[in-house]
Amino acid sequence: MSKRKLAPGPHHRNDAPSRSRKGDGGRKPHHGAPKGHKGGADESFIYGFHAVSSALLNPERKILRLMMTRNAENDLASEGLSLGSGLPISPEIMTSEEIAAALPPGAVHQGIALKVSALPDLSLDEACADSRTVVVLDQVTDPHNFGAILRSAAVFGAGALITTDRNSPPLGGVLAKSASGALEKVKIAKVTNLVRALDELKDLGFEVIGLDGEGEISLPDFKTGPKVALVLGAEGAGLRRLTREHCDILARLPASGPMRSLNVSNAAAVALYELARRG
Amino acid sequence: MSKRKLAPGPHHRNDAPSRSRKGDGGRKPHHGAPKGHKGGADESFIYGFHAVSSALLNPERKILRLMMTRNAENDLASEGLSLGSGLPISPEIMTSEEIAAALPPGAVHQGIALKVSALPDLSLDEACADSRTVVVLDQVTDPHNFGAILRSAAVFGAGALITTDRNSPPLGGVLAKSASGALEKVKIAKVTNLVRALDELKDLGFEVIGLDGEGEISLPDFKTGPKVALVLGAEGAGLRRLTREHCDILARLPASGPMRSLNVSNAAAVALYELARRG
Repeated sequence: MSKRKLAPGPHHRNDAPSRSRKGDGGRKPHHGAPKGHKGGADESFIYGFHAVSSALLNPERKILRLMMTRNAENDLASEGLSLGSGLPISPEIMTSEEIAAALPPGAVHQGIALKVSALPDLSLDEACADSRTVVVLDQVTDPHNFGAILRSAAVFGAGALITTDRNSPPLGGVLAKSASGALEKVKIAKVTNLVRALDELKDLGFEVIGLDGEGEISLPDFKTGPKVALVLGAEGAGLRRLTREHCDILARLPASGPMRSLNVSNAAAVALYELARRG
Repeated sequence: MSKRKLAPGPHHRNDAPSRSRKGDGGRKPHHGAPKGHKGGADESFIYGFHAVSSALLNPERKILRLMMTRNAENDLASEGLSLGSGLPISPEIMTSEEIAAALPPGAVHQGIALKVSALPDLSLDEACADSRTVVVLDQVTDPHNFGAILRSAAVFGAGALITTDRNSPPLGGVLAKSASGALEKVKIAKVTNLVRALDELKDLGFEVIGLDGEGEISLPDFKTGPKVALVLGAEGAGLRRLTREHCDILARLPASGPMRSLNVSNAAAVALYELARRG
């Protein structure tokens, strides 16, 4: 029996409810099973040690191909992942250059890469079922920022992330590398209509807080309820007007220095920390 | 009289003490005046709207060339910066493509770019003179992370940043863009010997806190003195052994989720927020 089956504990998707479609009219339609042919839209690459090892441990993640150097094989084995013990697929041992040639140009692969199918689509209520804090991203398109926000969510206990189907980066590659494994640990729902999603979150009992430099209240001064949805907009543009109007409140982070505006992933980290430290 | 001269308030370097060399044996030797010829080692490009407008407002910043589109000229004018009112140099009005051709490949210039001289070297005590919180970077080489940390420092009132002369990214280009203007607002000292710099910080009355995932105490539980130096290591590698050994204490950030480790710029933002909120 593989470790993959033995250790489902940290893999949130494992205890997700069945894939019912109800209760999420704004969700991206399901495109059916991953396409079998090479380079299908539901296939992507995941590379970098933490991103790959987390994906290998995620029983919901279908692995199509595992490429690694001899060194990476040893590193993985020292984490308890080897053929016959946790690896769901036989690795192809390759040189670093051969791996690079199989990946998009510039991929920082650290000697290890996967070809994977997309994770199963989750509805908003499936994604948020077990979370007291969720993150909502309103057109955050930069994959580094998106990935870093996933990572902060996984550190500060926000179990789900809601994003738009359009104007979001692909859930693999650079994003997965920046997320450093968090792509496998935070449940993600893609929605077509963010405003409808905010209303659904309210129906699920979430207090919807938009983070905005011009927010009416400083986040640390705002006493939140038991369930919070934190909404963040794209760097520069911020929250769209309709998004702002559908938040319960707009909050700002306090600034004591000569500048007011943080990088969006840093703002997310600080806000998630502030929400988490309240216990 | 130019706005540049009229409004020195927010430009920290303006009230820095004279460039005495004493009291900082570990500092990078001064290389003399910026070289006049094109592409000298002390010259760099700054691009992106916030990075450029902040540099134009910094009286310590020597501007060698200002390139912008007609649109950017209008945007700058609406911020009160125009020829005869704040611009230290006549702009060259160019197309976006012409600006891109003058910059390193891939530069996200937003229609505006500068060629500048490096800011004057600062000794550690000059940089830290007016700050209660300073940031120390131990070989953070990624310019996006470095820039984002500068930005968080400027938001949360950390007035100075100490870094190593070697294994630091150039103070321009991508770093300046990520810093979004903070490169002009946070004083930077480059040192050759980080351990000696930590000892000097202690002599200046700073409590030296190393941020480390395995830290002996959780940062929010640690009661800090009036002056704090926050030390951060490179992503992955973390603090070097000698750096760790010269910290007064190693502190960790609390994690309530399934992951422990943040992106280094996010860790910096959270730690600076935690220190700032104590007032």
